[in-house]
Amino acid sequence: MIGIDWGTSSARAYRLDPDGTVRERREGAGGILHVAPGGFPDALRAMAGDWIAAGERRILLSGMVGSRQGWQEAPYLPCPAGLGDLALGVVPIPFEGAELRLVPGLSAHDAAGIPEVMRGEEVQVFGGLDGAQDALVCLPGSHAKWVRVEGGRIAGFTTSLTGEAFAALRGHTILARMIEGEAAPGAAFDDGVARARDPGGLLHHLFGARALALFGRLAPADGAGYLSGLLIGHEVAASLPPGAGPVHLVGSGPLMALYGRAIALAGAEAVAGDADAAAKGLARIGERIAWA
Amino acid sequence: MIGIDWGTSSARAYRLDPDGTVRERREGAGGILHVAPGGFPDALRAMAGDWIAAGERRILLSGMVGSRQGWQEAPYLPCPAGLGDLALGVVPIPFEGAELRLVPGLSAHDAAGIPEVMRGEEVQVFGGLDGAQDALVCLPGSHAKWVRVEGGRIAGFTTSLTGEAFAALRGHTILARMIEGEAAPGAAFDDGVARARDPGGLLHHLFGARALALFGRLAPADGAGYLSGLLIGHEVAASLPPGAGPVHLVGSGPLMALYGRAIALAGAEAVAGDADAAAKGLARIGERIAWA
Repeated sequence: MIGIDWGTSSARAYRLDPDGTVRERREGAGGILHVAPGGFPDALRAMAGDWIAAGERRILLSGMVGSRQGWQEAPYLPCPAGLGDLALGVVPIPFEGAELRLVPGLSAHDAAGIPEVMRGEEVQVFGGLDGAQDALVCLPGSHAKWVRVEGGRIAGFTTSLTGEAFAALRGHTILARMIEGEAAPGAAFDDGVARARDPGGLLHHLFGARALALFGRLAPADGAGYLSGLLIGHEVAASLPPGAGPVHLVGSGPLMALYGRAIALAGAEAVAGDADAAAKGLARIGERIAWA
Repeated sequence: MIGIDWGTSSARAYRLDPDGTVRERREGAGGILHVAPGGFPDALRAMAGDWIAAGERRILLSGMVGSRQGWQEAPYLPCPAGLGDLALGVVPIPFEGAELRLVPGLSAHDAAGIPEVMRGEEVQVFGGLDGAQDALVCLPGSHAKWVRVEGGRIAGFTTSLTGEAFAALRGHTILARMIEGEAAPGAAFDDGVARARDPGGLLHHLFGARALALFGRLAPADGAGYLSGLLIGHEVAASLPPGAGPVHLVGSGPLMALYGRAIALAGAEAVAGDADAAAKGLARIGERIAWA
């Protein structure tokens, strides 16, 4: 089977053995934003045409490729939803030479009735958990998600605009003048996480970063780490229930270490999930689909 | 006397009668960012040269003109500080044809020991209070300030980066796509303020705005009002002590109505201060200065 985690800015394609092992992988910048209208069949052939030519007949897609801006819109499934619901809910797309299916995204409501959506993360959650029936999963990113898995199904989730807010604040406010370089683990990040527990709120803490720099108490090289710690610290404080068990971190890249540290500073255990969570999740859904 | 509230992006010049009445006023875009190095004497003459020629011999400046990026740096006075402290702390600047003095800014620390600074707002606070000895003052803006006046002196204050964060989030995140127009009072603003009281934190509420738009529950014309309500609502919730008395709002422009509404929704009374607060404050400090 071929599985593709096809997001907004990048795509990851996997050729999978029947048992879910990744036989081959490809990662590229071919996210849906880079595909012209009507260009999805060609984009798929560019990514995996040789695998199809070699005999693969089943292709499963997940992620923003199923959004209004993607290949075809797949309606959101409401939570709670498990692997079986996702497999039942796949949307077929006509495609020459292979059976093509699209995993639907999930919708939910937060405690106040405001809608929540995900596309692609549901696959990573089930791939990263390795069969656990109850878990709290965190997926760092531009739109970071905290997912509650109960009885083997995704019961609900919340999203925070943390990554995008970091980029906007770092690049387009007075904070830009006091920051050089990138966020990295270290004392400045820890200071930002600790600061997030002070009273006054995030908007006040943001000005405090400026004031610390003004008085020489925050060096430019530490600015990005401090700001990242502030934002991730606020997200973790608002997302981690009191007395929560281990948090399963699913994803890749430098944010994983930062989230792991912030969760540890909040007194919870962070467990790094499988880096191939998307591939595993696609395989687990694929084996439940009634292919032709 | 001539009083000038000289900020980063604009300047307001007042010709004041001995009793503090504004005889003439001028407002321009001549903020310190628009003055070339060494250009401050000429900029002052452009603003008020005719008043000096007409016989004014005393000039009092306040605001960012006293910062490192201004005409001359005036060290911050530590809080608590009253009118007498500000008058004693003025910094003389050599200037041909008139006595020129600079009101120092104020510094403080928040509850966690993080520094706080203001330049110019201290003058507006004392001008806006009309002699009240104890008050809570809110000054909306890019860097909004909440100031505690106790026994006639500024005891402490906190700043939030609300205005700048609004501009950065509105212009440089996915929220930009779902927003048309400007923030205005109305139901969408009220919804944003109410949302700020929900659990989940500001970063989660920002994603919720995106999700509401995705499901057609937040129209583009309402987006700016909702986002403004979210941010101002978070600021007010974090800055307004439980059971606080009336909040004196000092400033001008469309933010005044929005802050007044958010404070009322939080259950406190908002009292609009004098629109000429800077002029009044400069006059009150000027009458306490030992001019030559």
